[in-house]
Amino acid sequence: MKSTFGNQLKISLFGESHGPAIGVVLDGIPSGIKVDETFIQHQMDLRKAKGNLSTQRHEKDEVKIVSGVFQGRTTGTPICLLIENTAQKSKDYEKNKDLPRPSHADYTAEVKYQGYQDYRGGGHFSGRLTAPLVAAGALCLSMLKNKGILVGSHILSVHGVKDRSFSNSEKELKEQIEKVNETFFAVLQEEADAKMRIEIQNAQAQCDSVGGIIETAVLGLPVGVGEPYFNSVESTLAHLLFSVGGVKGVEFGLGFNFEKQLGSEVNDAFIMDGSKIKTESNNNGGINGGITNGMPVLFRSVIKPTPSIYKPQKTVNMKTMQDAELCIEGRHDPCIVHRARVVIDSVTAMGLVDLLLEQFGKDYFQGERK
Amino acid sequence: MKSTFGNQLKISLFGESHGPAIGVVLDGIPSGIKVDETFIQHQMDLRKAKGNLSTQRHEKDEVKIVSGVFQGRTTGTPICLLIENTAQKSKDYEKNKDLPRPSHADYTAEVKYQGYQDYRGGGHFSGRLTAPLVAAGALCLSMLKNKGILVGSHILSVHGVKDRSFSNSEKELKEQIEKVNETFFAVLQEEADAKMRIEIQNAQAQCDSVGGIIETAVLGLPVGVGEPYFNSVESTLAHLLFSVGGVKGVEFGLGFNFEKQLGSEVNDAFIMDGSKIKTESNNNGGINGGITNGMPVLFRSVIKPTPSIYKPQKTVNMKTMQDAELCIEGRHDPCIVHRARVVIDSVTAMGLVDLLLEQFGKDYFQGERK
Amino acid sequence: MKSTFGNQLKISLFGESHGPAIGVVLDGIPSGIKVDETFIQHQMDLRKAKGNLSTQRHEKDEVKIVSGVFQGRTTGTPICLLIENTAQKSKDYEKNKDLPRPSHADYTAEVKYQGYQDYRGGGHFSGRLTAPLVAAGALCLSMLKNKGILVGSHILSVHGVKDRSFSNSEKELKEQIEKVNETFFAVLQEEADAKMRIEIQNAQAQCDSVGGIIETAVLGLPVGVGEPYFNSVESTLAHLLFSVGGVKGVEFGLGFNFEKQLGSEVNDAFIMDGSKIKTESNNNGGINGGITNGMPVLFRSVIKPTPSIYKPQKTVNMKTMQDAELCIEGRHDPCIVHRARVVIDSVTAMGLVDLLLEQFGKDYFQGERK
Amino acid sequence: MKSTFGNQLKISLFGESHGPAIGVVLDGIPSGIKVDETFIQHQMDLRKAKGNLSTQRHEKDEVKIVSGVFQGRTTGTPICLLIENTAQKSKDYEKNKDLPRPSHADYTAEVKYQGYQDYRGGGHFSGRLTAPLVAAGALCLSMLKNKGILVGSHILSVHGVKDRSFSNSEKELKEQIEKVNETFFAVLQEEADAKMRIEIQNAQAQCDSVGGIIETAVLGLPVGVGEPYFNSVESTLAHLLFSVGGVKGVEFGLGFNFEKQLGSEVNDAFIMDGSKIKTESNNNGGINGGITNGMPVLFRSVIKPTPSIYKPQKTVNMKTMQDAELCIEGRHDPCIVHRARVVIDSVTAMGLVDLLLEQFGKDYFQGERK
Repeated sequence: MKSTFGNQLKISLFGESHGPAIGVVLDGIPSGIKVDETFIQHQMDLRKAKGNLSTQRHEKDEVKIVSGVFQGRTTGTPICLLIENTAQKSKDYEKNKDLPRPSHADYTAEVKYQGYQDYRGGGHFSGRLTAPLVAAGALCLSMLKNKGILVGSHILSVHGVKDRSFSNSEKELKEQIEKVNETFFAVLQEEADAKMRIEIQNAQAQCDSVGGIIETAVLGLPVGVGEPYFNSVESTLAHLLFSVGGVKGVEFGLGFNFEKQLGSEVNDAFIMDGSKIKTESNNNGGINGGITNGMPVLFRSVIKPTPSIYKPQKTVNMKTMQDAELCIEGRHDPCIVHRARVVIDSVTAMGLVDLLLEQFGKDYFQGERK
Repeated sequence: MKSTFGNQLKISLFGESHGPAIGVVLDGIPSGIKVDETFIQHQMDLRKAKGNLSTQRHEKDEVKIVSGVFQGRTTGTPICLLIENTAQKSKDYEKNKDLPRPSHADYTAEVKYQGYQDYRGGGHFSGRLTAPLVAAGALCLSMLKNKGILVGSHILSVHGVKDRSFSNSEKELKEQIEKVNETFFAVLQEEADAKMRIEIQNAQAQCDSVGGIIETAVLGLPVGVGEPYFNSVESTLAHLLFSVGGVKGVEFGLGFNFEKQLGSEVNDAFIMDGSKIKTESNNNGGINGGITNGMPVLFRSVIKPTPSIYKPQKTVNMKTMQDAELCIEGRHDPCIVHRARVVIDSVTAMGLVDLLLEQFGKDYFQGERK
Repeated sequence: MKSTFGNQLKISLFGESHGPAIGVVLDGIPSGIKVDETFIQHQMDLRKAKGNLSTQRHEKDEVKIVSGVFQGRTTGTPICLLIENTAQKSKDYEKNKDLPRPSHADYTAEVKYQGYQDYRGGGHFSGRLTAPLVAAGALCLSMLKNKGILVGSHILSVHGVKDRSFSNSEKELKEQIEKVNETFFAVLQEEADAKMRIEIQNAQAQCDSVGGIIETAVLGLPVGVGEPYFNSVESTLAHLLFSVGGVKGVEFGLGFNFEKQLGSEVNDAFIMDGSKIKTESNNNGGINGGITNGMPVLFRSVIKPTPSIYKPQKTVNMKTMQDAELCIEGRHDPCIVHRARVVIDSVTAMGLVDLLLEQFGKDYFQGERK
Repeated sequence: MKSTFGNQLKISLFGESHGPAIGVVLDGIPSGIKVDETFIQHQMDLRKAKGNLSTQRHEKDEVKIVSGVFQGRTTGTPICLLIENTAQKSKDYEKNKDLPRPSHADYTAEVKYQGYQDYRGGGHFSGRLTAPLVAAGALCLSMLKNKGILVGSHILSVHGVKDRSFSNSEKELKEQIEKVNETFFAVLQEEADAKMRIEIQNAQAQCDSVGGIIETAVLGLPVGVGEPYFNSVESTLAHLLFSVGGVKGVEFGLGFNFEKQLGSEVNDAFIMDGSKIKTESNNNGGINGGITNGMPVLFRSVIKPTPSIYKPQKTVNMKTMQDAELCIEGRHDPCIVHRARVVIDSVTAMGLVDLLLEQFGKDYFQGERK
């Protein structure tokens, strides 16, 4: 409910864009897991605004471990991660507080919370809240990596410019994941990279914004993860993916392209691969009946163009209840797709850890007896 | 977790395709709500296999109210709905129990449950389990209707044949919803209807199957429904939609088409409509920041071609661990899109009732003081 | 929430005293567990009204397994257990429906559900709902027994007549548990047995009722079960115990007698018992910091005198809002302590299975690979 | 699960005795509620160690509001409260880290977390974690007070020394609650106060400790709060009360004394009090069938003697697995009953807010439209 997620692993997200700090509590992480603070910071850096493609609000995003880690390992009790807000400029928001930004949560939050929400910078609805998600996700990604499970995403397209898809070969896919996980602007093809950047800069130059599609792969999941019906892998991951601001569509395997095919064309035949059962194709994206079948889990998420644009926009004044014009100031991203990529990986990892704990219990992840 | 869903409204689904009965428990429905058994049966009929486009397994699907309803109204305590299985033919399944059907849950369930699952007809993973979902959904749809909230879906496309989209006019949309809710094969345009049926019959004639896309609209939701992050409207609905067997993609508003647009082209400007705030366009499908903005909620779900096809297929023998060939017998649907439509409406209604209870409490729905 | 309990194991209770059936859904029981229907029926029999100490409403209480069991073992998917109501006499209740029975839920339910509750025989609040709890508990008790964990209770006192306490010797305790688990009127000392029965018959003769205290022991729990704070063993068990109608107090170990002691008198010193750590005394009832320490878990629950008595009682007419006199008819127990005993064991087993799944995962219980 | 509680109001507790900070996240508090920081600090002060009856570890216990409060009122999004640890002396604990303190969580945590728990000062199991519970409880107590619901506790007895019970008159009870809520050592009778202090000082002088019983009253609850079975008022409150370290017994109304009575002696007759329904007596402590009946809710919790005593104690060395002797150093309380009192009130308030939100929704508490 609300800003809390999970069955085995409870994740409780808190904070506002212009409050003193934002953070997250994870309850249910087994004890004895090494906490790699360098990796956490690496992930935070992938999400950070940098260069000329992003907002000029630069936060240090240092993750402070408040609880649940002792002598470099998890204790088994709740982990609180805290990130201070340091670069707020609240004045930018005071001026327009009665003018809801189109396609943002300003109006819906005003009604929902009866005017008591923190309106500065979107408050709890700010994209800044993805920072603690990335911190928490880094922990989960480490846990998965220890078990040989890799998660990675790349930008499949931005405003019509396409990257190639992840490889069907598991060996190549592994290399691709490892590569994109080290890259800030995660694209497989160099030409696509350059063209996408231009697309974003063009949008920026026109005071406009663009969106895109992120493709994600998970390699190495055991068979049997996911629960029937309400905790299927698709349900769990989609739940989390749609929690990320700007995500408006999610598809697994062939996704919407299933509509054009015959059953005989897209059924994934089972075959023996040595002594192991595999599927010949992977149109279902590694999931049968909501449960992993051992093939790579594959899905795509679409992220809409950043709604904060510098062009003047029509809106209403919620106080006077009259039509109005809005000129957004502040510091905004012409595109968040490249920064959102690591958020997608992070929430994916949370969902998978939850499902793996459900299926295999804490011992699956737990460190050796001290 | 598992086959249980919800925060305010707990839904617990149980049963197997070839067990004595299937059913559902709803815990959290307020007291005093009129239970319209005729409407429940009407919804069951929309889901039923009929005519030449569906399986020849014909179940009566009579819904027995075991608890929680007294003198025609809900009591406020848990409601158990039970549907007997009467037309099972388990022998069809004994023969192939070691040969997992491609793109079904047979293999993943075998591994997950270590061989103890009920393999007959897919067991708990059977499409039959959508029958109690429809029964429970009927209750929720009634509750919404009492509050002026309408839910409706139509088949937007089947194997390349397209229907037109729902109208942008709320008045027309209302009429369209009312019409499709009375139609077994729910298509807006007559020509599309005929062409789709032919497409399905062609697939059937070739021992093959097809899938399609369902478009859903919700009209009349108040502003402020949905929770930030993990219980956004998109998260909640996608969670439920992906629980329906065969759904492999979900998109809200423009969905994947957002990728091709500029922010300025797709932002939904706020405007005054008399004394009411509306948006000029509805590219976000009625949801801003995860919360309803009062515009119609719009989304599309893709359903893959039915994996049960009569063509011989490659598979493996899970006992001997060798390649094998599978010839599916039994009674199967060449297309489930038209039957799935009412399941989509049903789970949508469940999700919305859960979120409405979260936002407004039980009094929102509760009947007048007796 | 409401009539649903549990984290790893979700238990959803439904039904009314005078509806067609009552039952329970268990979601989260691992696959491959043998289901001993004879044992389930044995437990049902321990709860049944019999002889002259109980109500003359005699129900067959046959447990029908609707789902989740296949070929004698659990499938891993939800288990629905159904018990038909056959011996209702609703007319007894129509007459007094506006006169709430003192110390029953009649008045509170009337207000809570705004008059829509099923008032016949207490509806959902009836003691009959403990029948599905016993059926579900039987499954959990079997699971525990397979792991060497024994649960047993005896009547420690009834209206001032005392039985002796469970033995401090684990060997003797085991024998005592095994004996009481086969006994309908579970008392350790023969003299206490006879005296208690007389006490109950005396109350009955006076159209009155008595209560008592039940002592429960759990033998064989591993160390480390229970979670800090909100899912401590005490919290989990007390939560369930107070769900049983009539329970008004729960104490662990020395319980309320701790108040009279010094820390030095009651601290349980750790000692080596061969290569195993034990405690010298067991004043904490096997629980330290909310977590099992390997010693027997011991607690006592008090059950108030049955509120249904045949003596005329003061009440009010909820329709006319005037003082009134109530003469309860129907069939009632002069004492429910001996029947409640098996309910206490049942909910205890549910709580322990939930906590054991939390700590050790499904593999702890799961049957061997088929 | 674990350190997370609640249905409508999710409470997530985190931190360790010797970590940088401890805290709590509350998700589900409605928007618009005035946050009285002075009252929060007042409650923190009631819990603080002071004078000669408590530990000499003196923490400032300043509560920092990290999120969820804006311009003095709740925003409706998660509230994080943080309390820095400043007075840790970890060295005291290093020495004895292999010697578990009797009746503490040291041994059970060592096994449960496989040696990775933070052992300093009890880590997550420390009584210090009740500080964020008090901070969160202060918020809940304010919410209740705004609705005319008062919660208060007093020390009913310490090591045999008894205070008188709360009055049966609601008017007197109100005054008693108001008085004890302003008192650090909350006792109704002056003589009892003096005698209890002497009892505690005597224990302290002998390097020993004592426990006691706390009596709690809740005045002003509406009828109809609490859910059947698993979320009865008794279940909810007992769950929370047993989460407080040292609580080993909880009883409602007559509690264990019900055992000595006949039904006719203890049934609470309904009577008209003007136009209002009341009960003549209140032996059930304001709860019928798990639901409030409008009478004061009354219960008692027993707190065992503080297990940290300065006398040498038998224990084992968990590393060498040999018998050992333990001399506890550090700073400890000879009695925690007077400090625990405000913790009891705090968790009671959390449980009641959860149940009130369940029954009446957010509007019950929500502030006026801004």
